[in-house]
Amino acid sequence: MRLFTVFCACFTVILCAQIPAPDLPLMPWPSQAARGSGQFVITQTFTAAISGAGSSATKDDTRVRDAVTRALYRLFRETGIPVSFNLVDEKSSPSFLIVVERKKPGIQKLGDDESYRLSITPDRIRIVATEPLGAMRGLETFLQLVGISPSGFAAPAVEIDDHPRFEWRGLSLDVSRHFIPVDGIKRTIDGLSAVKLNVLHWHLSDDQGFRVESKKYPKLQEKGSDGLFYTQAEVREIVAYARDRGVRVVPEFDMPGHATSWFPGYPELASGKGPYEIVRDPGVLAATMDPTKESTYKFLDGFIGEMAKLFPDVYFHIGGDEVSPRGEWFHNPHIAAFMKKHKLVDFPALQAYFNQRVLKIVSKHGKRMEGWDEILHPDLPKSSLIQSWRGKKSLADAAREGYSGILSAGYYLDLMQPAAQHYAVDPLITSNAPGETASLTPEEQKRVLGGEAAMWEELATMENIDVKLWPRLAAIAERFWSPEDVTDVSSMYRRLDATSHWLDLQGIEHLSEIREMQARLAGDFDPAPLAMLASVLEPMKGYTRHRAQKYGSLTAFNRLVDAIPPESEAARKFNDAVDRGDLDYVRARLTEWRDNAQRVLPLLQSNALLAEDIDVAKAVIEVCSIGLDKTTTDPARLDDLAKPHAEMLIAIAPGVRKVVQKP
Amino acid sequence: MRLFTVFCACFTVILCAQIPAPDLPLMPWPSQAARGSGQFVITQTFTAAISGAGSSATKDDTRVRDAVTRALYRLFRETGIPVSFNLVDEKSSPSFLIVVERKKPGIQKLGDDESYRLSITPDRIRIVATEPLGAMRGLETFLQLVGISPSGFAAPAVEIDDHPRFEWRGLSLDVSRHFIPVDGIKRTIDGLSAVKLNVLHWHLSDDQGFRVESKKYPKLQEKGSDGLFYTQAEVREIVAYARDRGVRVVPEFDMPGHATSWFPGYPELASGKGPYEIVRDPGVLAATMDPTKESTYKFLDGFIGEMAKLFPDVYFHIGGDEVSPRGEWFHNPHIAAFMKKHKLVDFPALQAYFNQRVLKIVSKHGKRMEGWDEILHPDLPKSSLIQSWRGKKSLADAAREGYSGILSAGYYLDLMQPAAQHYAVDPLITSNAPGETASLTPEEQKRVLGGEAAMWEELATMENIDVKLWPRLAAIAERFWSPEDVTDVSSMYRRLDATSHWLDLQGIEHLSEIREMQARLAGDFDPAPLAMLASVLEPMKGYTRHRAQKYGSLTAFNRLVDAIPPESEAARKFNDAVDRGDLDYVRARLTEWRDNAQRVLPLLQSNALLAEDIDVAKAVIEVCSIGLDKTTTDPARLDDLAKPHAEMLIAIAPGVRKVVQKP
Repeated sequence: MRLFTVFCACFTVILCAQIPAPDLPLMPWPSQAARGSGQFVITQTFTAAISGAGSSATKDDTRVRDAVTRALYRLFRETGIPVSFNLVDEKSSPSFLIVVERKKPGIQKLGDDESYRLSITPDRIRIVATEPLGAMRGLETFLQLVGISPSGFAAPAVEIDDHPRFEWRGLSLDVSRHFIPVDGIKRTIDGLSAVKLNVLHWHLSDDQGFRVESKKYPKLQEKGSDGLFYTQAEVREIVAYARDRGVRVVPEFDMPGHATSWFPGYPELASGKGPYEIVRDPGVLAATMDPTKESTYKFLDGFIGEMAKLFPDVYFHIGGDEVSPRGEWFHNPHIAAFMKKHKLVDFPALQAYFNQRVLKIVSKHGKRMEGWDEILHPDLPKSSLIQSWRGKKSLADAAREGYSGILSAGYYLDLMQPAAQHYAVDPLITSNAPGETASLTPEEQKRVLGGEAAMWEELATMENIDVKLWPRLAAIAERFWSPEDVTDVSSMYRRLDATSHWLDLQGIEHLSEIREMQARLAGDFDPAPLAMLASVLEPMKGYTRHRAQKYGSLTAFNRLVDAIPPESEAARKFNDAVDRGDLDYVRARLTEWRDNAQRVLPLLQSNALLAEDIDVAKAVIEVCSIGLDKTTTDPARLDDLAKPHAEMLIAIAPGVRKVVQKP
Repeated sequence: MRLFTVFCACFTVILCAQIPAPDLPLMPWPSQAARGSGQFVITQTFTAAISGAGSSATKDDTRVRDAVTRALYRLFRETGIPVSFNLVDEKSSPSFLIVVERKKPGIQKLGDDESYRLSITPDRIRIVATEPLGAMRGLETFLQLVGISPSGFAAPAVEIDDHPRFEWRGLSLDVSRHFIPVDGIKRTIDGLSAVKLNVLHWHLSDDQGFRVESKKYPKLQEKGSDGLFYTQAEVREIVAYARDRGVRVVPEFDMPGHATSWFPGYPELASGKGPYEIVRDPGVLAATMDPTKESTYKFLDGFIGEMAKLFPDVYFHIGGDEVSPRGEWFHNPHIAAFMKKHKLVDFPALQAYFNQRVLKIVSKHGKRMEGWDEILHPDLPKSSLIQSWRGKKSLADAAREGYSGILSAGYYLDLMQPAAQHYAVDPLITSNAPGETASLTPEEQKRVLGGEAAMWEELATMENIDVKLWPRLAAIAERFWSPEDVTDVSSMYRRLDATSHWLDLQGIEHLSEIREMQARLAGDFDPAPLAMLASVLEPMKGYTRHRAQKYGSLTAFNRLVDAIPPESEAARKFNDAVDRGDLDYVRARLTEWRDNAQRVLPLLQSNALLAEDIDVAKAVIEVCSIGLDKTTTDPARLDDLAKPHAEMLIAIAPGVRKVVQKP
C-alpha cells in the first residue's frame, strides 16, 4: 500500500505538467489526457505485473489476472513481438505494472467504479485503478495506444485520468430475427469491452425466434427456434465471458407483444386461437399474450424464476413494446369482458395491468424490471428502468416522474446511418426543444443513466453482424463514455478510422466479413474491382429497404448490398476533399472509380447475384463522368442517379453535386 | 437396403454415359469424374437426409450425422442461402441423400474404406459410401463443386466414383519451435479434412518446447513449455475433433535427440550434466537422452503408458532423427564404457539399442512404433513404420527390407517452394534412378503407404501458419489421393486457385493472415499499395533465411517477409503471360507494379519494420523498368536484382529476364 501511495503522489505531479494531447488513436476519448515526451518501445523483454488488493486472483474473481494475461497476448497480436504471456513479480521492475486498489467480488453492478489512471513514460507503463473494472478499461486504452512508429511498435508517453460520463453504456442485440452463434456473441463482447461499453442487452425472444433453452418449458426452444438457440450451459459461458471483460448481460424476453415464438410450444399463453408458427416476416404482429388468464402468470412465474437464476444481473428486461392495437386483444371478446370487469379503459391500461402482475413476479425473483417506453405507467414503481426507443421527450418525461432511464432512440445501428449522425445524439444535452432532457433539473438529469445502441436483425445475419456494428458502435461508445464537450466530428472520424484498424487487429471481423462476402460474390474472378466499386456504395437508409422488397428471416442476405459497410469511408474522404477543394484528389478518385466500374462489368455479368449491380456500375460511371466533365445537360440527371440502385446509394453523389455546382 | 441396391443400379447406368470433366474446381482430383448436363441450383428449400446402416448415429459414432449437419452449415457459408441445418427424413424426397452402407465404429484405422460415389443431377444429389469415412470425403467433393453461376449458386451435374491412391496421407506439424493454439490445430484439421488428408502427425516435443501436459511427469510441461502446451482435456478434444472429420492423430515425441525440452524438468534423463533450459535456437543439438540408464526406460515406460491412453491411434511416433554425432554421447565416458561392454560399435548401434528398448515399451502399451529413417536397423520388427525425410532411396531400401514406409522428403512446406515442385514428387513413381521406389517389386511397392507433408516451425508462428500451409498443401493432398497420372501442372494451378478461394470461404485463414499482418505493418496508412508490392515477392527458399540472420523461437516474425505467401500467384500469372507472349498483359502489370512501388515508398519510410523494404521497392521499380524498356546497359544487373532483398525474392524477375532476352 505504501508503494501505491508513493506512486499516486508521483502521478499527481506529472499530471500538473500536462501538455495537450490531440488525436491520440483513442476511442472513447478519455476524461483527461496529456502527452508526455517520447514513447515506450515494445520489445520482447516486455513484462507485466499486477499489484494491490484488487489484483489478487481469488476463486470468485480472477478478472484482473486474466485480463492482463489476455492483454499480453493481444499485445503480441498487435505487434508480432513474442512477449511472455506469464506475469512476473511486481518487485522485478516490470515494464507494465497494474495496481488495483481494492477487491470487488461478486456480480458486476451498475455504478461499479470504472475509473483508472494510465501513465506511460519511455521507461515504464503504469495503470492505477480503484477496482478491477477500471483496470480493464485502462488496459484497453493502453492497447489502443500501441502502434507502429519510426522506432518500431511503441506507445506514446501519456498521462491519462479517465472515468465514464454515464454508468449504463450498452448494446441491445437482437438474436431473434437472425440467430448469432456463440462465437459471434463472444466476439461482440470483445468489441464492447474494447470500446469500454459495459452492457450487453440480449434481446432473446421475439416473434421470429425464441433463443434460450428452458428446461422447465422446453417446447419454447424446441418449437420456437428452428434449433437455433443457446443452451443454458452456453448462456452461463457467455455471462461469465462477459463478466471477465467488464460487461453486464441483461436478458430481454419481450412480452406481451413480440412474443409469437412462445406460442408454437405453448399456444395457451396467447390471446388468439392459433395454431401458431414461428413468424418469418418482420413487423408488429397480432399474436399477444393473454393477460386475463391466471395460467399466463403461473407460466411466467416459472419461466422468469428459471431465467432469473440463469442471468445473474439484477435487471430483467420484459420488453413491453409495440402491442398491436388491432391484434388478438382487439378480436377477443373474453378480453373485452375482462377489461370491462376490471375497469381497464384501453389496451395501454390492460398492458399496465399485465406489467403490474409481471413486475410482482420479477421482483419476487430478486430482479428489477426494465422495459421499453410503453411500460411507463403511474403505477410503475420507481425502481423500474425505462429504455427509450421513442426519444428524449419520452426519456425526459420518465425522469421527471422519478424513473431512471436510458436512451436508445438515435442509436439504431440497423438504420445504416453514418457514425456522425449517432454521434450527434446526446442522452442529456440537446436542442432546447421543450420537454427534452436539456430542460431537466440536475436531480432529474441524474436519472438518465446512459444509453444503448440497438441492433435489430431483420436485415443482418451471423455473416455480416460485425460490419453492421463496427466501427460505428465505437463512436456511440464515445458519446456514452467521454465528456459531453467531446463533439468534434473530424477528430471523431480520424480516430474512428484508427479504431476500425485496431478492432480489426483485435479479431473483430467487420473487414473480414466484407472481404469474404465479396469474394463469394466474385467466385473465380478477382474480387478487387468489385471491392472498389463497393467502396463508394452504401445501403439504403432507415426502413426504406423494407419498402423495396419483402424481407423475412429466411431471405438470402448474400447480395452486394449485404456485403458493404453502412458508411463508405472512401466516399467520406472524397466528400471531404471536395469541401476543402482538393481537385487533384477529386479527379484522381473519379477517374479511378469510373475506369474500375467499366472493368468490373464482365464480373457483374457473370453471375445471377451480381446481375442487378450492372445498373449500379453504369450509374457510378455516369456520376464519375459528370464530376470529371462538370457538365450535365439535364440537371435532374444527378438526382436520378442519386436514387437507390439495387438497394444501394452512390455515396459520392453528394460530393459530385458540389463539384458540378462550384464555379 | 433395397433402396440402396436400386440406387446403385441407376448409378452404374449413368456412369456408362460419361463425358469428360475438365477442370471441375476439385482438389484432389477424383479417380473418375464425368460431367452430366445442367446443374443443381441451391435454394432455401434445400434439404438433406441420411440413410443406410452406416449413417445411424450411435453413442460411439455420430460422425455421419454430424458431418452432414456441418456440411449444411458450410453450404450456407458458401452461398449465404439460409438452408435448414436440420436433417429431414429420407422418405421426404430430400435434395441431398447420403447413403452409408455399413457402420465402422471405434478408432479410425489405416486402410478404413474412404471410397464414395457422388451423383449430381439438376434434381438431386446423392452420395453413396461404403463406410462413414467415404461419406465425409464425398461431402467435401460436393462442397467444392458449389459455386456461383449465371443461375445463382449451383453444383454442376457430375458422376464421380472416387477412392484414394494411398492409405496414409498426412501432415507432420511441428508445434515445438512455435506453439499453435487449439483453435489453430482445429482449423488445420478442418483444412486436412477438406482436401481429404487423413493423418495429423503432431510433432509435440523437440528441443524448443514440450507441448503436452503429463500428469505423471508434470515438470515436462511446467519447465519445458513457457506455459504453452495442450492440456490433456484439450488433447482429447482435438483427437475427437479430428476423428469427427476423418483424420487420425499420430503423436510424436522425439527421442533420444531433439529432446532438450524434457531435461529442464527431468535432467536425469539426459546424457550430460546440465543444467538445462528450453532451447531458443534451431539446429541439431548436443543434449540427448541417456540410453544406458535403466531409469530412462522406467521413465519412458511411465510416460509412453500415459500418452498411449491419451492418443488412441495405434501408431506412436518416437522420432529418432538427428542424434548429434558430437553431442552428449560423444563426451560422456560412461556411455563409451556402456557401448564397449555391450559391443555397440558406433552411435547408430547405440541408438538401435535404445530403439529396441523403446520399442518394447511402445509395444507393451499396445502401439506400433513409427520413426524417422534413422530407426531403420536390422533388429527392427517389420511392424514398425518408417517415415522418410532422407528421400526415396531410404524409403525404397526400407520397403525392400520389408518395412512399410511413408515419404516426407520433397514435401517440406517450410522450404517455401512452389506447389509445382512438391506436386512433381511421387512416393512411388520416379525417375529410374537406381535404388528409388520405381525399381520396387509390386509387393514392395505396397509397403509404400503414402506420404506426409511436413511443416517445421522455425520460421512460422501461430500468426502465419495457415499461409505457410495453404493452398500448397492441397496440391500435395492431390498427389497422395489422386491417380498417379494426374500430373498436369497447368490444371493443378487452375484448380489450386479455385481451391484457395474455397478454403478461404471454409474458414482457413491463409488470406486473412496476410491481410492482417500487412495491415499491422501499414499502421495508419492504406495497406493496399503494400499488398500490391508484396504480391510480387516471395520469401527466400530452402534454409537460406537461416544464413541471412540468426533466428530463434523468440524472434519477432512480423516483417514483410513473414507476411507474404511462399508462392506469388501474381508472379506465376505474369510469368505464364510472358511464356505465352501476352505482351499487353505483361506491360500493363509491369507498369502497375512500377507505379505502385513508387507510391508505396512514403509508407515504407514511415516505420521501423518497413524501412528494410525500401530497397525492395526500388529493386521492383528497376526490374519493372527493365522489363518495360527491354534494355539493360549491364546484363549482370538483373542477376543482382534477382538476389534476395530483405530476405525476399522478386518473383517476377525470371519472367522479366525472358522478356528482355526475347528478340
